[in-house]
Amino acid sequence: MSDLYEESLKLHAKYHGKLKIEPKVPCENAHDLSIAYTPGVAKPCLAIHENPEDSYKYTDRGNTVAVVTDGTAVLGLGDIGPEAALPVMEGKSLLMKRFAGIDSFPLCLDTKDPGKIIAICKAIAPGIGAINLEDISAPRCVEIERTLIRELNIPVFHDDQHGTAIVVLSALINAMKLRKADPADMKVVISGAGAAGSSIIRMLYQYGFHRIYAFDVDGCLDPDEADSYNDLKKELLQYVNLDHQKYKNIGEALAGADIFVGVSAPHIVTKEMIASMNEKNIVFPMANPEPEITYQEAKEAGAWIVGTGRSDYPNQVNNLLAFPGLFRGALDARATKITEGMKIAAARGIASLVDEKDLNPDHIIVSVFDERVVPTVAEAVKKEAVASGVVRPC
Amino acid sequence: MSDLYEESLKLHAKYHGKLKIEPKVPCENAHDLSIAYTPGVAKPCLAIHENPEDSYKYTDRGNTVAVVTDGTAVLGLGDIGPEAALPVMEGKSLLMKRFAGIDSFPLCLDTKDPGKIIAICKAIAPGIGAINLEDISAPRCVEIERTLIRELNIPVFHDDQHGTAIVVLSALINAMKLRKADPADMKVVISGAGAAGSSIIRMLYQYGFHRIYAFDVDGCLDPDEADSYNDLKKELLQYVNLDHQKYKNIGEALAGADIFVGVSAPHIVTKEMIASMNEKNIVFPMANPEPEITYQEAKEAGAWIVGTGRSDYPNQVNNLLAFPGLFRGALDARATKITEGMKIAAARGIASLVDEKDLNPDHIIVSVFDERVVPTVAEAVKKEAVASGVVRPC
Repeated sequence: MSDLYEESLKLHAKYHGKLKIEPKVPCENAHDLSIAYTPGVAKPCLAIHENPEDSYKYTDRGNTVAVVTDGTAVLGLGDIGPEAALPVMEGKSLLMKRFAGIDSFPLCLDTKDPGKIIAICKAIAPGIGAINLEDISAPRCVEIERTLIRELNIPVFHDDQHGTAIVVLSALINAMKLRKADPADMKVVISGAGAAGSSIIRMLYQYGFHRIYAFDVDGCLDPDEADSYNDLKKELLQYVNLDHQKYKNIGEALAGADIFVGVSAPHIVTKEMIASMNEKNIVFPMANPEPEITYQEAKEAGAWIVGTGRSDYPNQVNNLLAFPGLFRGALDARATKITEGMKIAAARGIASLVDEKDLNPDHIIVSVFDERVVPTVAEAVKKEAVASGVVRPC
Repeated sequence: MSDLYEESLKLHAKYHGKLKIEPKVPCENAHDLSIAYTPGVAKPCLAIHENPEDSYKYTDRGNTVAVVTDGTAVLGLGDIGPEAALPVMEGKSLLMKRFAGIDSFPLCLDTKDPGKIIAICKAIAPGIGAINLEDISAPRCVEIERTLIRELNIPVFHDDQHGTAIVVLSALINAMKLRKADPADMKVVISGAGAAGSSIIRMLYQYGFHRIYAFDVDGCLDPDEADSYNDLKKELLQYVNLDHQKYKNIGEALAGADIFVGVSAPHIVTKEMIASMNEKNIVFPMANPEPEITYQEAKEAGAWIVGTGRSDYPNQVNNLLAFPGLFRGALDARATKITEGMKIAAARGIASLVDEKDLNPDHIIVSVFDERVVPTVAEAVKKEAVASGVVRPC
């Protein structure tokens, strides 16, 4: 692993970053300039002035995504600041282009004030097609995203919240097929109720998993403790622990559980806990960089399906399966927002790529390099956006 | 001309804008991803966290310029708004790449509040190498640029103010050589004291033209009227009308003048006025789209050197001669700002490209397609930045 880090440092030093911005129109002589720039450019300007929607016709806007961060929750590194966040944001933009043909650029902001971040995103909106919020710490990320979704008419998506959630759901959709089980019958234990965890909880509930128990650092979310919770945690009580269980710890909850999803801390789940789960159990330990329990340990303890965040084990739950196609579909639809329905459509699209005959415990999800992923997700997301009417006038 | 406009509209509709953002590193397999993105990317992130200046080493920052506008003074079209400004900003970014290899992206802001524009520029600074302010109306543009120059440690440059000024000065440097004249002896009349005019006044004065008379819509700037002036206009009294002339109109001032520079309104200068100037006079009527006096009329009235903004006459005073090399040099030097000295160095650089033996009234300035322009300007600007110590620590 240390070699990967050194190799990365060398790559970044060699290329000085990972993106370049190039003309896509001719620009070789005075005539070219008079068409691409002055005086000719006055004509598309005036057309857009007359009808601002024509900005999608005459500019890059409709294929452009800003990747916005304040550098407060970068990878597992924490609050390392806007300069230090830049390599990750360039990487994100790189993936947008490589996987979905989207022109994307990073904006690393020197402010942590949610109000200012919101104001900046609103101010830059007229020139871009969508905003990808990235590596902004919870709970600020939730407030920022929700306000922008409400107040802007371009898609705004915080990948750290929903990217993993979409792929977890798509993996569970296929796990349910393989187990021939009904989501409503499944006892689900989720470790972590922050940015990613709370989105996983919401999506699973909306898909039909209604027996969810969630843990954060203070223990099991419990409706009888609502008075002591912040708003975000209170909101989750719609979806979890509907029968008011009093689990003292995650070990107690896992006894007789069917599904474990971890987006929390390393090594908090033991082999004994896994062994106490039901038959044909499904275990997704995805804490970064060290998981709640390793793939080997989970398997040794008898886990039936194990999914991880790593590419060197079966069933990689990787948000790269979701966000490129999701943005592609949202841009293609000229969606005004990304709804819960569009996220579930993305999850169903990803899940659909494993044929039922190929489904097995080591293969419930496709590789990020499967070329069908982005078009399938994009089409599903676009269809849902159009069907639910969250699209701009054309 | 109308064909140019239609052709431009078609070009913009065909390509949907003019820029694309591409990877410049390999991104084809899981290994590539682990180097360009997670987990490897953590290493350059941590290196930058330790030393933020390393953002210039490991990211695109050092070659990236944001083109920022609020759409209030776009071309000659006025306040057409941020969406409609986008084709011009994309064009500017296009020129940055085509002429100087700079990666540049537009930010069209949905606010006209100088405080908010300043706050946004300050917030995005950690991820970019420089800011090009564009098409922001006067006098707000002056306040915005000055505040940013004072408060940021990356170059900030408002091309509409200084781009034309630099090229006017470079043309006058060569005109002085040809005329074998001393700037201090020249009587200069400038029509227009807004964004471009005030920068021309400052630059010419600093170069050594000390007999300058400037006109705006209220007439000749006059130190005896200072009490009724706004701050920007008051400031110009350091440079103009030092002998308290009481010219009633531009015609009176042009009698016995050596140089006319117009950045004001169409057809305000007559052939008679040109004829009343001194021998070997120099006339730059550059109002857009119609000049203060046409090239033909000025020549018929006996003007010796005529420079215009147009490419179809000799001596095109085109800001494209200045800004690409200026930004290239500032970025290469890792300058913290663009000083008056750097602008004058750029003007001298441009002027130096016409050999003294080739100088003649129809050739005092080179073409924008002369490949020596950008490297020459960049080198001059970089040298001046280093010499005056306005560079970041490396």
